[in-house]
Amino acid sequence: MKVDGAAYRSIWVDPQDGWSLRIIDQTGLPWSFDVPRLRQMEEVAHAIRTMQVRGAPLIGATAAYGLCLALRRDSSSEAMEQAAMTLRRTRPTAVNLAWALDRMLTRLRNTPQADRIATAYLEAAAIADEDVAQNASIGRHGLPLIERVAREKPGGHVNVLTHCNAGWLATVDWGTALAPIYMAHDAGIDLHVWVDETRPRNQGASLTAWELGKHGVAHTVIADNAGGHLMQRKEVDLVIVGADRVTSHGDVANKIGTYLKALASRDNTVPFWVALPSSTIDWAAADGLADIPIEERSSAEVTNITGQAVDGRVINVRVAATGSPAANPAFDVTPARLVSGLITERGRCDASSDGLLSLFPERRA
Amino acid sequence: MKVDGAAYRSIWVDPQDGWSLRIIDQTGLPWSFDVPRLRQMEEVAHAIRTMQVRGAPLIGATAAYGLCLALRRDSSSEAMEQAAMTLRRTRPTAVNLAWALDRMLTRLRNTPQADRIATAYLEAAAIADEDVAQNASIGRHGLPLIERVAREKPGGHVNVLTHCNAGWLATVDWGTALAPIYMAHDAGIDLHVWVDETRPRNQGASLTAWELGKHGVAHTVIADNAGGHLMQRKEVDLVIVGADRVTSHGDVANKIGTYLKALASRDNTVPFWVALPSSTIDWAAADGLADIPIEERSSAEVTNITGQAVDGRVINVRVAATGSPAANPAFDVTPARLVSGLITERGRCDASSDGLLSLFPERRA
Repeated sequence: MKVDGAAYRSIWVDPQDGWSLRIIDQTGLPWSFDVPRLRQMEEVAHAIRTMQVRGAPLIGATAAYGLCLALRRDSSSEAMEQAAMTLRRTRPTAVNLAWALDRMLTRLRNTPQADRIATAYLEAAAIADEDVAQNASIGRHGLPLIERVAREKPGGHVNVLTHCNAGWLATVDWGTALAPIYMAHDAGIDLHVWVDETRPRNQGASLTAWELGKHGVAHTVIADNAGGHLMQRKEVDLVIVGADRVTSHGDVANKIGTYLKALASRDNTVPFWVALPSSTIDWAAADGLADIPIEERSSAEVTNITGQAVDGRVINVRVAATGSPAANPAFDVTPARLVSGLITERGRCDASSDGLLSLFPERRA
Repeated sequence: MKVDGAAYRSIWVDPQDGWSLRIIDQTGLPWSFDVPRLRQMEEVAHAIRTMQVRGAPLIGATAAYGLCLALRRDSSSEAMEQAAMTLRRTRPTAVNLAWALDRMLTRLRNTPQADRIATAYLEAAAIADEDVAQNASIGRHGLPLIERVAREKPGGHVNVLTHCNAGWLATVDWGTALAPIYMAHDAGIDLHVWVDETRPRNQGASLTAWELGKHGVAHTVIADNAGGHLMQRKEVDLVIVGADRVTSHGDVANKIGTYLKALASRDNTVPFWVALPSSTIDWAAADGLADIPIEERSSAEVTNITGQAVDGRVINVRVAATGSPAANPAFDVTPARLVSGLITERGRCDASSDGLLSLFPERRA
């Protein structure tokens, strides 16, 4: 999507040398927009580990390109397997990371050593391009939901609420939950997005607000507490969120707080949609509450916050009373009964086994 | 309640001189515990205006004492009325402020000028003492709810969740929502409090966590997003919140985000109780959503946050993307249907007309 008028992806091969990587350092956002150049596999591993790149699809694409850099130094099978192991360990729970590396290795193990580097770059580019195509497809399937509101609502002004960051920064381009929003914006629909700030890590206020603002989409940041009130006042027409994992029955694990917005949506008859690539579906899990382990992250994310002081310095401050402990569950589970439907690259469906199997019939037992 | 073992109120007459006021400067909490001395009415007006004292009951008591200080300088009727007007303008929407000043004036207008100062101090003390007694009564009526969980739950460990600050810092002592919690703690019940941080002003993380910690009550700060997840995992036995206004039908206006916790409580069959002094009941309002105007506060409270840097300095930092606008509705309305019951100084009742009238029969038409 665009940053101040120029088109960007969240990762790309530098066109000047044709091999080094450029990423957007997301730890600097929204304060500074830096696009560091990565020349070594170790720099890629560091970028993933320190969350300079984050979001499952982007992590996968980045790791794939990381393997390309490793092969440039040593294209032997031993070195390749070693590099894949190093990259795999950077974020052990990220499913896409393992998936992308396995795909690269499957292709490269059967490739003569002399062709490996070129093949690796082609395969990494395919992974990145497929992610973009998949998200664009999610956008096209989500767009009619926004078009319908624009068509049927007097005045045609559409208010969408989203939680966390499921935008292009979390993927290679388009994003998942934000893909229909960008398409609606680009199609000229009169659209406004309520952006939950998404404590404790503030991905909404820092990343979603930044990317919507840079692309030119009207939006307003709100405290996570405010969404229910806005729905009561008819200020939300539609909720679209992303997902970290969706069970075969349609339960949705997503950023902590998503469940509360789903409850408010139901109480106010606001449609609540979840956008996801099919790689997010965990076909082995059925009951989200029973089957999905919830990561407990550092309490410092709750007791402290990072922001920019008036002098421009970005600093971390403690916001909770000294000595008070904090708990930090990172995700929650929204039961399928609260989800209006799922938006995937193959189309929309009910949040249910039947719904998912209608789009993915190859998964029928 | 206690601060590091010593008993405190949130406002008191200095025992050394018998006339100057001491308050806890709540703008310094939780970083610094200062008890400035106020000698002039203007200092009292400033303390209310800048929220060094906040919380409806405390504001009322503070304004009453402010009038005492004004009378020490000039006890004429003209000066008294003038001072009351100045104090009344400090927080125009605070109901208790007007109520306390009217009560003082009613008493003092009929008092000979020579007796006014002494009478004023007695009346202000009565206002403060009555607030303490009323809150203690709320505590006694709320305590059985906690005792029941302690008795019936295997292990007897009680988890209470609260939102915002309805503690002793918001009143003269005890607080409203926290009064039953302090009583349960003092009675030796094995109790733990989940403290919503309460963005955007963070009254939970800064004030509630501070006062619970100083009194020695076990507690954990959580992001406002986390409460629903904790309820799904059976980690919350009871929710108790305060109220800014309650309608005659039992609808509850309280700090933004309360409604979301009430929805999660219902979805997980967790009792959701609201503690309030009867002065909070707006007998003229019936439908909370239609009849209660919601204050929209500064967007800077959402885009920025105040905390303590590692060097000890308390500074304000921007947490939202530069240029992104923010909305800041300060309260929301929880419909009576989501409220398990109300805890008042006269006892507990259903959140309904019938419930309220059973406790306040003098309000029957």
